[in-house]
Amino acid sequence: MKELKGACIIGQSGGPTSVINASAYGVIDTALKSPCITQVLGAEHGIKGVLNDRLFDMGLEDPEELRLLKYTPSSALGSCRYKIADPEKDDTDYRRILEVFKKHNVRYFFYNGGNDSMDTCNKINTYMQSVGYECRVMGVPKTIDNDLFGTDHCPGYASAAKYIATSMMEVYHDAHVYDTGMIVVMEIMGRHAGWLAASAALASEYGAGPDLIYLPETDFSMPKFIEDVKRVYAEKGSCIIAVSEGIHYEDGGFVSEAKVAANDGFGHAQLGGLAAILAQVLKEETGAKVRGIELNLLQRCGAHLASETDIEESFMAGKAAVENAVNGINGRMIGFERGVRDGRYACKTKLIPLMEVANVEKKIPREWINAEGNGVNHQFIEYALPLIQGEPDLPKVDSLPRFAKLKKILAK
Amino acid sequence: MKELKGACIIGQSGGPTSVINASAYGVIDTALKSPCITQVLGAEHGIKGVLNDRLFDMGLEDPEELRLLKYTPSSALGSCRYKIADPEKDDTDYRRILEVFKKHNVRYFFYNGGNDSMDTCNKINTYMQSVGYECRVMGVPKTIDNDLFGTDHCPGYASAAKYIATSMMEVYHDAHVYDTGMIVVMEIMGRHAGWLAASAALASEYGAGPDLIYLPETDFSMPKFIEDVKRVYAEKGSCIIAVSEGIHYEDGGFVSEAKVAANDGFGHAQLGGLAAILAQVLKEETGAKVRGIELNLLQRCGAHLASETDIEESFMAGKAAVENAVNGINGRMIGFERGVRDGRYACKTKLIPLMEVANVEKKIPREWINAEGNGVNHQFIEYALPLIQGEPDLPKVDSLPRFAKLKKILAK
Repeated sequence: MKELKGACIIGQSGGPTSVINASAYGVIDTALKSPCITQVLGAEHGIKGVLNDRLFDMGLEDPEELRLLKYTPSSALGSCRYKIADPEKDDTDYRRILEVFKKHNVRYFFYNGGNDSMDTCNKINTYMQSVGYECRVMGVPKTIDNDLFGTDHCPGYASAAKYIATSMMEVYHDAHVYDTGMIVVMEIMGRHAGWLAASAALASEYGAGPDLIYLPETDFSMPKFIEDVKRVYAEKGSCIIAVSEGIHYEDGGFVSEAKVAANDGFGHAQLGGLAAILAQVLKEETGAKVRGIELNLLQRCGAHLASETDIEESFMAGKAAVENAVNGINGRMIGFERGVRDGRYACKTKLIPLMEVANVEKKIPREWINAEGNGVNHQFIEYALPLIQGEPDLPKVDSLPRFAKLKKILAK
Repeated sequence: MKELKGACIIGQSGGPTSVINASAYGVIDTALKSPCITQVLGAEHGIKGVLNDRLFDMGLEDPEELRLLKYTPSSALGSCRYKIADPEKDDTDYRRILEVFKKHNVRYFFYNGGNDSMDTCNKINTYMQSVGYECRVMGVPKTIDNDLFGTDHCPGYASAAKYIATSMMEVYHDAHVYDTGMIVVMEIMGRHAGWLAASAALASEYGAGPDLIYLPETDFSMPKFIEDVKRVYAEKGSCIIAVSEGIHYEDGGFVSEAKVAANDGFGHAQLGGLAAILAQVLKEETGAKVRGIELNLLQRCGAHLASETDIEESFMAGKAAVENAVNGINGRMIGFERGVRDGRYACKTKLIPLMEVANVEKKIPREWINAEGNGVNHQFIEYALPLIQGEPDLPKVDSLPRFAKLKKILAK
């Protein structure tokens, strides 16, 4: 392997998570210590920061503030949802990226994101190879959606799952306080994969979980849904429901977008999300007290409930990306392989070709979902429970979180 | 003081909080140890449990499970929103209560709730005195709304405030991740008093708080609101807003209920709450990306973010109720008096006549709110910050909360 000396760029992309900064810290900390890497640059707002030559010199940051990134939610460098063009159709962006890479002698590019970001990574890698510019491009996975291909799970998922399961347990207790009955619909993120909504089932292990769970992996039927809820409510006097925002009818139409029915007086545009729609339907159908709760952004930035396992694995993914790149690896995303050590869950990194990851979505196996499509079984619990383990020692000031404060000094 | 021997009843009423069970545990634990109290009964669903003679023998519970009540959100005995009649108009309920009291030789009645519950307490006390049945009736305060009269603050408020401030800090970070601008409207509980929404300002002390806060203590003006948001958004490219659910126009009409304007295409019934309404208005007015977030039940049951100060004070309130009652005190609610010990915040209990507390609401002093009515000043911060201090050592199993499980065995 030829030693490659030069600067590196770390960029963050897509929706933030509670632990994406732990991965960034894994990259930054490892890169700062690497003799091959001459400068560690943080791109402002992902690939946009490269295009705009807005690159922060991470070596000028206070090491203690960098360490706090492990416990700081959201993307500290700023994120973007910039879709890079196909290089055959329009190579403007690529020529600009090459120009900036050359200016700063960038020889390592680490991109921290989900499916789309891996696609960006892959395209940049292909372009750099096609023009003969030596640069090692590595993907560092991130997504609360847990839908990246080829990895056992994704950094960010477990902390969101822990937030969801804990909140579900608390809401369960709250919703059972009166003897007058209550139906709760909890809307959980996940447009195409139900990993997040399914994590509400972890609460069931401790007697405070949802009665019903609906996921995008199966088709949603409103009459069946109403029937399910009525049955549970008649039996228990309450019904707690977890739904993925991405549940859809057989024809693919999202329930959140559809007008529910022509004849229910509900044909107008609505403001609330899916939870509000379903709550309205259930109110009309049951006459019960119904609450729609949308976990919204809270589930993806709830760092105070982060899984220590997730934080450490996210850091490990960033670290592995740098170590592998320095050792000559290129065009790979870091993935996780689940194993067993001393009879307990263990996790190690593996390498997945970017080409295989880009734009593919991994869903919950159908056999982990019950036949009726309104719950998950023990295979899911066994999969998810080890991931949420461990409480980080969260830095606090005045009992509120002490998040990292970066100086963000532009590189010369 | 004459020694009074007999059973006691503890009941919980109104909306639950993260720490109402800590107060119940304060009552139960102290009562179980008191030689004057012959039996400790927990009323199922508050006063309804008395009326239905559904009383649990708390002495039969596992002491360790009772201890877990300190960390268990919601009302473990069950709550109610039962409005007891005026005894002069209809004394049916009171005669039934007397009957049940006599059956179990109940000589102490502890009621754990907010304004309405203190009214119930007061009426029962007056009735028992009028019929010459010796029984000591004590109110144990509880409300996230922090609006009880005569006490510096209320058990339950601080934990909700800490949940709100922490969530605000996390959402602030999430909302600043893109360079494309973002407006967030966070809807916080509080129908008539703004203590909860104001607590979002605690996040501002750490650089991650709301730009604007709207409270029910001042009249809301939609044009002024739009102007405020547009100004902040133009200046910063983002705007984070905290609103009380109870904000209202000058004529008293709730913003959450009103049709916003006749000519904005927005005159239809809406499903989401206030956050959805305001988000829609701001979308139309600014064209920006706007997110409405409703903290919903999460803020009142988020025991994983409880304030240790709040837990201990809630326990103390329950304990003081029993100790005072056993010492001959009657017809009082336990209140808190703020003081200073060794230069730091300290809190001790005091006694407030139930008659003075019932049905009165305490609001934020106008001088703690800025002149424009869109923020709070440092007097509020100095008031609220000491209350949220301290992290409880939360019992967990598999990294999820381990809440109390009561056997709830009916008393013979």
